[in-house]
Amino acid sequence: MNREWNIQASNAALNTTNPIRAIVDTGKYKPNPEKSVIPLSIGDPCVFGNLNVDQYVNTVLVENIQSGKFNGYPPSIGYEASRTAIAKFVETKTSPLTASDIIIASGASGAIEIALTAILNPGDNILIPKPGFSLYECICHSKGFNIKHYNLLPERSWEIDIDHLKSLIDSNTKAILINNPSNPCGSNFSANHLQQILQVADQYRLPIISDEIYAGMTFGDNVFIPIASLTETVPVLSIGGIAKRFLVPGWRVGWIAVHDRNNLFTAIKKSLVSLSQLILGPNSLIQSILPSILDTNNEQINKFFQTVNATLEEQSRFTVESLSKIDGLTPITSSGTMYQMIGIDTSKFVGIEDDVAFMGQLLQEESVFVLPGTVFGMKNFFRIVFCAPMEKLADAYQRISVFCENHRKK
Amino acid sequence: MNREWNIQASNAALNTTNPIRAIVDTGKYKPNPEKSVIPLSIGDPCVFGNLNVDQYVNTVLVENIQSGKFNGYPPSIGYEASRTAIAKFVETKTSPLTASDIIIASGASGAIEIALTAILNPGDNILIPKPGFSLYECICHSKGFNIKHYNLLPERSWEIDIDHLKSLIDSNTKAILINNPSNPCGSNFSANHLQQILQVADQYRLPIISDEIYAGMTFGDNVFIPIASLTETVPVLSIGGIAKRFLVPGWRVGWIAVHDRNNLFTAIKKSLVSLSQLILGPNSLIQSILPSILDTNNEQINKFFQTVNATLEEQSRFTVESLSKIDGLTPITSSGTMYQMIGIDTSKFVGIEDDVAFMGQLLQEESVFVLPGTVFGMKNFFRIVFCAPMEKLADAYQRISVFCENHRKK
Repeated sequence: MNREWNIQASNAALNTTNPIRAIVDTGKYKPNPEKSVIPLSIGDPCVFGNLNVDQYVNTVLVENIQSGKFNGYPPSIGYEASRTAIAKFVETKTSPLTASDIIIASGASGAIEIALTAILNPGDNILIPKPGFSLYECICHSKGFNIKHYNLLPERSWEIDIDHLKSLIDSNTKAILINNPSNPCGSNFSANHLQQILQVADQYRLPIISDEIYAGMTFGDNVFIPIASLTETVPVLSIGGIAKRFLVPGWRVGWIAVHDRNNLFTAIKKSLVSLSQLILGPNSLIQSILPSILDTNNEQINKFFQTVNATLEEQSRFTVESLSKIDGLTPITSSGTMYQMIGIDTSKFVGIEDDVAFMGQLLQEESVFVLPGTVFGMKNFFRIVFCAPMEKLADAYQRISVFCENHRKK
Repeated sequence: MNREWNIQASNAALNTTNPIRAIVDTGKYKPNPEKSVIPLSIGDPCVFGNLNVDQYVNTVLVENIQSGKFNGYPPSIGYEASRTAIAKFVETKTSPLTASDIIIASGASGAIEIALTAILNPGDNILIPKPGFSLYECICHSKGFNIKHYNLLPERSWEIDIDHLKSLIDSNTKAILINNPSNPCGSNFSANHLQQILQVADQYRLPIISDEIYAGMTFGDNVFIPIASLTETVPVLSIGGIAKRFLVPGWRVGWIAVHDRNNLFTAIKKSLVSLSQLILGPNSLIQSILPSILDTNNEQINKFFQTVNATLEEQSRFTVESLSKIDGLTPITSSGTMYQMIGIDTSKFVGIEDDVAFMGQLLQEESVFVLPGTVFGMKNFFRIVFCAPMEKLADAYQRISVFCENHRKK
């Protein structure tokens, strides 16, 4: 045997593609070298330096580092004290939890990966939102899980088209995945709408995976309601983490909370524990601060949450106000998160055939970087991350206005 | 449709089992309540508090936390500066590397998972050592990769049985995985032996995955040699991390170094990048300290490495000395790491039929916790982690001696 070298990548690897990269990083569009780039594209609140983790969080972290007590391996599902803290942080009166209901993972992304892997076999399908966060699709393609997209309706503040959702269910459907509050929509479902979703789950006996990484990040009268709090029958895996709420996405600590009142998830819970052993869980130091920073009686942290939400709300309002004035753009007002979807009426413009062209030419001419809706499955929308400081946002929106005027159909 | 709830775990989840747990955590054996437990079972240098990360590492980490610059998302393969630091830390004169050759992952475990997933399809096979670290098997079973175990020979200081290795190769074999220095063996391969392995890889055109998480942790005249430094033809994925050498296994930052002089790994390198996007890489803060702590000119760190190695070497020597005196036990002297394998001659004892019984009864009578060789695929051996302080080790070895005398065949 002395064949040639021929090392092939696995199918799993070849099937792991990032739709954002595939559409946005084609090299076709470059920023205008004469204008500074304003990136409103990345879902990272830390990009501009205006939104910072609370100093209390850093203080606890530094204390725990100096103690030398948190350098060894935690259990693969996480320290018990940390899991207890998460349980108290995410439970509600109607959906009580204990440490044994929590699996800590490497970010909410790691939590989603484990949750999907525990429930689906290759060839099974899962219902996911359209528009939706691209990671769901990326993980499913990588693992050979089939996807069925249910529609979110912009004209109903991005509620689920329930009839469409139902029509997709077949005998290979293993779960309904929802993302509430939503990336990229910035929506926050009402109790009534969550009940409608639960009715479908109940009727078809489908568990729910609820990605709640933006839990609590809502504006004004909009209150985040964990879907698990509204059901006694439907088992729910609720995904959460500290990334967005504490403004530390790089810290990579997320979790799965298993809401399972009727022991329907016994096999799944065991599976989540098994799967957590593959990479042995996330960073021990960050885990170690959870009992302090997730304490719901911590006034410092509660004030921090309020301040962050108030800042984001102001930036959200300014975004909608500014972009509503531009004929041909239709922002769908966000109820929370740090995202804003804006519809594009291409008939109002010349030479902008769709959202990808809009994104590309906006970057090329005005150096403002947004994401085209197509990367989330929603053509002729674009997404703005409104985390930037007000003056940056004002500059960006002024440039978008100029861009639209320059391309306006006369 | 109104069927009963019936939520099954996926095959991937059901196939993810930890052999250590399956054999050790049966509930059959409990420690003697009258004696304090001495755990010599866990590969975690932080268990006893005698081995601590260098204060310099903590100082840099605290500075970087306070800077507020490292809270956002790093690239999924890691910060460029961190990858540059790793490249310089692991390269040799004959195997130069740059940042683009490095993928940072969630611990060496995460690195191994990504590396295996990039190369193997379900149904392919990989050659792995016996005895060997149980995670390789755990990941392969979970993902449907077949395993073929090649023998390590205790009588040759745990070198690979090269003829046996060759005999296992078939058309579905995709890679040879080696672990050097070795867990559980504590062995460190010579240049000559590494050349023998490379010859096989060359002949059969098989890439090598070299788990080098214990790189540099060797004793006396034993020098660790990266296998990639000895070949110009065989592509090598070298796995490393800070867990063991810096005494911080909970921090979960590992890496893959791609040694690929002839562009045979182009598809694999792309795949590793794609797969890194699934969970978005490890903790940003720990990544951020790599340029400081991996600087090979850092005298403080070099001294720290020397001190840790000297401590482990002393504890290793004491282990071999103490256990050699016990008739029926045969320690195979370690050349590095923190592990010691000890052969059991069961014919010398009454009522101890194998290594699992030895482990169980030792725990039950003397509250000393070791791991039976069976969990690594090596019957009638047991593994000791010799990280405990000398007085604990002395106590443990005294108890093992008493245990053996109590069970000695007259």
